[in-house]
Amino acid sequence: VLNTHQQWLCRRLASLGYVVNRQVGVADDGPAITQAVREGLFRADLVITTGGLGPTSDDLTRDLIAELLGKTLHEDAGTLAQIEEFFKARQRPMPDLARVQALVPKGAIVLPNHNGTAPGLAIEVPPNPFRATASDCAGEPAGEEAGAPKTAWLIMLPGPPRELRPMFDQSVAPLLQRELPLKEPFVCRTFRSTGIGESLVQEKILPELAELVAAGLDLGYCARPGQVDVSLAAHGDGSPALITKAEALTRKLLGGAIFGTEDEELAAVVIRMLMARKETLTLAESCTGGCIADQLTNVPGASAVLLAGLVTYSNEAKKLFLGVQEETLAGHGAVSEPVAREMAEGARTRTGADYALSVTGIAGPSGGTPEKPIGTVFIALASASRTVVLRNLNPYDRETFKQVTTLQALDLLRRNVRLA
Amino acid sequence: VLNTHQQWLCRRLASLGYVVNRQVGVADDGPAITQAVREGLFRADLVITTGGLGPTSDDLTRDLIAELLGKTLHEDAGTLAQIEEFFKARQRPMPDLARVQALVPKGAIVLPNHNGTAPGLAIEVPPNPFRATASDCAGEPAGEEAGAPKTAWLIMLPGPPRELRPMFDQSVAPLLQRELPLKEPFVCRTFRSTGIGESLVQEKILPELAELVAAGLDLGYCARPGQVDVSLAAHGDGSPALITKAEALTRKLLGGAIFGTEDEELAAVVIRMLMARKETLTLAESCTGGCIADQLTNVPGASAVLLAGLVTYSNEAKKLFLGVQEETLAGHGAVSEPVAREMAEGARTRTGADYALSVTGIAGPSGGTPEKPIGTVFIALASASRTVVLRNLNPYDRETFKQVTTLQALDLLRRNVRLA
Repeated sequence: VLNTHQQWLCRRLASLGYVVNRQVGVADDGPAITQAVREGLFRADLVITTGGLGPTSDDLTRDLIAELLGKTLHEDAGTLAQIEEFFKARQRPMPDLARVQALVPKGAIVLPNHNGTAPGLAIEVPPNPFRATASDCAGEPAGEEAGAPKTAWLIMLPGPPRELRPMFDQSVAPLLQRELPLKEPFVCRTFRSTGIGESLVQEKILPELAELVAAGLDLGYCARPGQVDVSLAAHGDGSPALITKAEALTRKLLGGAIFGTEDEELAAVVIRMLMARKETLTLAESCTGGCIADQLTNVPGASAVLLAGLVTYSNEAKKLFLGVQEETLAGHGAVSEPVAREMAEGARTRTGADYALSVTGIAGPSGGTPEKPIGTVFIALASASRTVVLRNLNPYDRETFKQVTTLQALDLLRRNVRLA
Repeated sequence: VLNTHQQWLCRRLASLGYVVNRQVGVADDGPAITQAVREGLFRADLVITTGGLGPTSDDLTRDLIAELLGKTLHEDAGTLAQIEEFFKARQRPMPDLARVQALVPKGAIVLPNHNGTAPGLAIEVPPNPFRATASDCAGEPAGEEAGAPKTAWLIMLPGPPRELRPMFDQSVAPLLQRELPLKEPFVCRTFRSTGIGESLVQEKILPELAELVAAGLDLGYCARPGQVDVSLAAHGDGSPALITKAEALTRKLLGGAIFGTEDEELAAVVIRMLMARKETLTLAESCTGGCIADQLTNVPGASAVLLAGLVTYSNEAKKLFLGVQEETLAGHGAVSEPVAREMAEGARTRTGADYALSVTGIAGPSGGTPEKPIGTVFIALASASRTVVLRNLNPYDRETFKQVTTLQALDLLRRNVRLA
């Protein structure tokens, strides 16, 4: 299955100042899991495993690690009570199998799971007998001080992201800061930008930040469709001052392209802006098919802002729900500037919202023409004072098209809210 | 960044009968890359690397592997011509840097890149001098016949998915079937189910499949919110018969909970069913906020089925677009069986669709009451003959709530399409 943990954990750990050295994926197979954990404990001060703690017969990690470390498992009463409570709250009987998740290796710290049944487990692994004898991968130094074996931490987290992520923030981050404190200060700051490509972001900021990079600034880029994140990090005593300088320069150079910091989503920024202004929004989506509404409604509080979202895939729906004129559709086609304009204006006036965003385009894989190739999209923003329409070309696969177009629509709103 | 290659390559290789033993992610760092390739060649008959073949200074893989294997690089005339052709077709000048991508290690097979500039490379690695001396990870057998070193294949693929995927299908799959033919038959089958939890799925099938597991059936589960996948795999001459038996039993035991096979999504199943019946659908979403529309419109061809999706977050929008009665809202509340019913019926009659699905509930994090706690949701399906309404409790975080409720709504439709 798609491994989203690698990206998420690497980012979270990096923001705390911990460098991820290696990520290993193995099959749900005893020897492969054991071998990967052995190697990890030999290589690193911290090993995090994800998954394999559930109730089914292919959830092997807990047992294998207890065996590897020579620890017995016992049933933890507090954990069992939490698992029972989980099923009670959902008015479902607790299956017998679920009970295995209350088994805890001797000496392990239990990390409570508030969003599922299997708790996380943290174990301090002494240098002996295991780490010192793990010489089966000679030729690699075990950290910096190969001669002085240290204890390592082994942390087992459940697989589902909705369980793993809050557990990391609530239990793992404090444990790391307590048990594996950084040797020197570390500062990290991320800016999120949209509307300019990765190479252009780099061209804009690299020359002016070069001096700070020479002084120890670690500059990173992460590009995904429609969005480039810039991270500024530094280690050592001078790092706070270095990052403050880098931050000011980055803000000046990227300006309005920066929509947020750290892991803030553009949808959350837009909801926050409109909530603060007590303003409302209606959506009229065609080719994005509900993607804009879906992203906005992922943000708690969206109901104070979003009055309605109309996914008007068919021409009939555009006429019925938005009042788009038959002549406009016939004269310009559904994917056109005038239709985008009528969609936004119709959505706004019909619902009485302060703003309406509309999108009409050709997501593909079929439907393109020479004048309007696949990827053509019109995005309109209507407010009381005016309607603006963008024409973009997003020639990507269907899902990427929806994603990029959604960011462009939300960014059009973000950049115009103060002006409307 | 998000690693999508692992999932894609594992599935493709598995469907060809090759078992992926280990997936390793390392930083763009010379020693880390070399070490990971060394270990891979020691462990496996086939090592596939992805990325690091491009023209920039952090693209190290080609050089490092040539050095590791003691091979010189030469400029391949055919590859250079293809790179030049790539830029010519795009009417762009070829940067000097691009030329490095025509460098090929001596003896390597060039895998042409029809969607980018860097070709893939396949190299047969003899047992000596490298593999036989890779004794730095002793304690692990190198495959089954540790005593008889074999040649291995090392295949380097470019990073971008739109280059890697067609290259795998066009060049790598035939090469594997020619150079690394399977020693015995392999069969693998995945069933996707919804509506029952992972433990219950196991309780239902494991006892009856126990005999087949003893005979060599490999049974795996993969749970995500609202969905459990069951995979059945077997090696050897008896595997087709074993899988046929396991498949029949699994279908019998899980019955209607199975909505699809392999990597088919529920949204795609629903679109396919309705397309085949030439029937149409309208959505009226409240708490799912466009998530159902978004998932359905990810499926190519959705426009033939989905007439409209109304995201009626506010009471006003429910009245305006769906004709929900003020008295119904006042008397029962927006989250109620009668409102769900009026939403679905209003959506259906207003658009003339064959079916309408509606959802109204409390996604949280606020808004719950003792009678209707957070997670309460009503899902209605209206057809010409009748309207059915489900009441569920999905007490999850906001995004999981939307995801699970979306699956429940689509599954209500799937289970009723034949009956309506």
